[in-house]
Amino acid sequence: MKSPNEMVRINNSIKVLDLLINKEMSRVDIAEETGLTKTTIGDIVKNFLNIGFIEEVKVPPNGVGRPSISLKIVKDFAYVIGIGILRDSVNGCLIDSSGEVLYNVDYPYIEENPQINIVYKAIDELMRKAELTNRKVKVISFGVPGPLDTEKGIIKEPPKLPEFANFPLIKKIEEKYNVFAYLENDADMGAIGEKYYGKGKDLDSFIYILYDKGIGAGIIIDNHLYRGLTGYAGEIGHTLLFKNEELKYFEDEYGIDCIVKSIGKIISKPIKSIQEVEVLSDKERKSIERFTEELSRYFASILISLIHYFGISNIFIDGRMKYLGDSFFNQLLNFINKYMFHKHTINISFSELDEYAISQGAAKLGLINFFKTQIIKYF
Amino acid sequence: MKSPNEMVRINNSIKVLDLLINKEMSRVDIAEETGLTKTTIGDIVKNFLNIGFIEEVKVPPNGVGRPSISLKIVKDFAYVIGIGILRDSVNGCLIDSSGEVLYNVDYPYIEENPQINIVYKAIDELMRKAELTNRKVKVISFGVPGPLDTEKGIIKEPPKLPEFANFPLIKKIEEKYNVFAYLENDADMGAIGEKYYGKGKDLDSFIYILYDKGIGAGIIIDNHLYRGLTGYAGEIGHTLLFKNEELKYFEDEYGIDCIVKSIGKIISKPIKSIQEVEVLSDKERKSIERFTEELSRYFASILISLIHYFGISNIFIDGRMKYLGDSFFNQLLNFINKYMFHKHTINISFSELDEYAISQGAAKLGLINFFKTQIIKYF
Repeated sequence: MKSPNEMVRINNSIKVLDLLINKEMSRVDIAEETGLTKTTIGDIVKNFLNIGFIEEVKVPPNGVGRPSISLKIVKDFAYVIGIGILRDSVNGCLIDSSGEVLYNVDYPYIEENPQINIVYKAIDELMRKAELTNRKVKVISFGVPGPLDTEKGIIKEPPKLPEFANFPLIKKIEEKYNVFAYLENDADMGAIGEKYYGKGKDLDSFIYILYDKGIGAGIIIDNHLYRGLTGYAGEIGHTLLFKNEELKYFEDEYGIDCIVKSIGKIISKPIKSIQEVEVLSDKERKSIERFTEELSRYFASILISLIHYFGISNIFIDGRMKYLGDSFFNQLLNFINKYMFHKHTINISFSELDEYAISQGAAKLGLINFFKTQIIKYF
Repeated sequence: MKSPNEMVRINNSIKVLDLLINKEMSRVDIAEETGLTKTTIGDIVKNFLNIGFIEEVKVPPNGVGRPSISLKIVKDFAYVIGIGILRDSVNGCLIDSSGEVLYNVDYPYIEENPQINIVYKAIDELMRKAELTNRKVKVISFGVPGPLDTEKGIIKEPPKLPEFANFPLIKKIEEKYNVFAYLENDADMGAIGEKYYGKGKDLDSFIYILYDKGIGAGIIIDNHLYRGLTGYAGEIGHTLLFKNEELKYFEDEYGIDCIVKSIGKIISKPIKSIQEVEVLSDKERKSIERFTEELSRYFASILISLIHYFGISNIFIDGRMKYLGDSFFNQLLNFINKYMFHKHTINISFSELDEYAISQGAAKLGLINFFKTQIIKYF
């Protein structure tokens, strides 16, 4: 147990870390943004320099005068592998401590192979890439479908991903690779990815939606991931719908797999993937119009609820939903604009990171949490 | 414009104020909870003592030793009137600076009278109560149906309250009473009321729902009112429903006034108020069962969405919805328990403050904002 004073020092250190993770700053800048005194900042910075994850750099003066000293994260303090365990594939990346993405990989699951082996394959590939250039991977961090037990590092019973039910992922990874391992909900990691690498860069608050077989939201409020008290915030896939006198969860009716199945039924020609929707004939496209209209109505009302409940105007949609194409997306926007109660500017668009938002966000949050463990160790 | 350094000092002062508003604390306790140094705290406390809204009190030692010095809000620094402008009535209260409620008043609107006159009547009555005992009212603070322009102090176009459309409330009040005036959304003020005077006392995060003619939610996250980027967070009354192939806003179908109308139609006997539902005959009660079942289903799914989206487990419902009675409430809970995706303990119950949550919350938040203006003035 840490003493109250130690807890204060740790919390203040984390405040400073949160700033330096985003940009180079001088001690004076940090004092201004945190409200901490120069002495407190001095102690924290000294500690960070000792641990070794920040360094001092001289910044030439604007006009005449002495150069000022700025603090920045040391790029090669630790390399981090981020892994997104998706419903049909695994993607991953290698980043350095400044957050720069060095490699991306992407492997589909293969039917006869256990899915965890594909996860190991992605990690091994990224490990090999790192070793080739003498980079030391110290952290492997995961974005995975929930529900999770984040404390114990266990994936619980993710819908539509049965092989990972009650899977002690963190224990397995720590044993196999001897690194610091971390996991968090896929949509939450995607939101972090969007924050550092995507359209969320200059936004304090936004919602990231992962729309695939599972449907979830990651919520960034005031530059921080909002998890809620239960850790389950953003569980939009389980919004209730009333359809044909029955109650259904949105995800169970309109997950990407369900959409594929429904469209196959309507056009009487089974399709395998949502990508095939793009190459439907005009006649087929016409026949699925009622279905996509209905889907856009249900999804639009979830988006409207998010906007009205959270008072947030920026929403980025990731996952394979984008393959439904522009006409669907326009339907969606028209709907939202029609039924927004308060007229204010909204910005709803597709993520440009594809599902790499998840692995890149996982890497970044894994790195931050690794730094935090180092800070706590030093007290 | 304040300089960055002044802004830091103001923000730190507000952090300290937020603590003292809740309880007596020593300088050491404050340092521990805020992470600020003793020098910084010393300066802030000196400033607060100068302004005059806190005082030092000696606390006898637990065992042997010297008494310690604790800081507390001065009860009679300023008295505050809180007003809830409701759809059919006005309620109000008088509090002292420690937050203690001294009086409550409640006036229904009278048909031939402009509603603003009832507001003045409530204020005048509370002013008179204050003057009788030489109390000085410095703040009048309002909880009113949105949308609002909080910066300009204008009520915009509240549904079901046409007399207050585009009403410059704050200007009128400041001119008439020469006090500091403040306004905020009714459900937000209710949430603050619930936080300080009701079931939210010991909770960091919860949702307060005002279910009346208008339906809205006030959201407390980590002990603070969450307003969202747009200021409109918690707008649950405008959740979209699909009913008989049409899209409707929840509030327009199931606001208390709509419920009264629908029930009157079903039992073929117009009723005037929701209170009359309590005295329906068994036969009449039976005939409205399908309607209340439908209502409980729609409202339950909104509550489930709130729980799933925000990851919050404590919800308190205020407003006249309580007159629908226990059997309705049990229907609601059964529904929620059946369709909660993650099984965790939830606590959904009626507020015990009635709509006084709104006026009392308004008073408390008005007081806090008045203190903040004093702090800013002193820099």
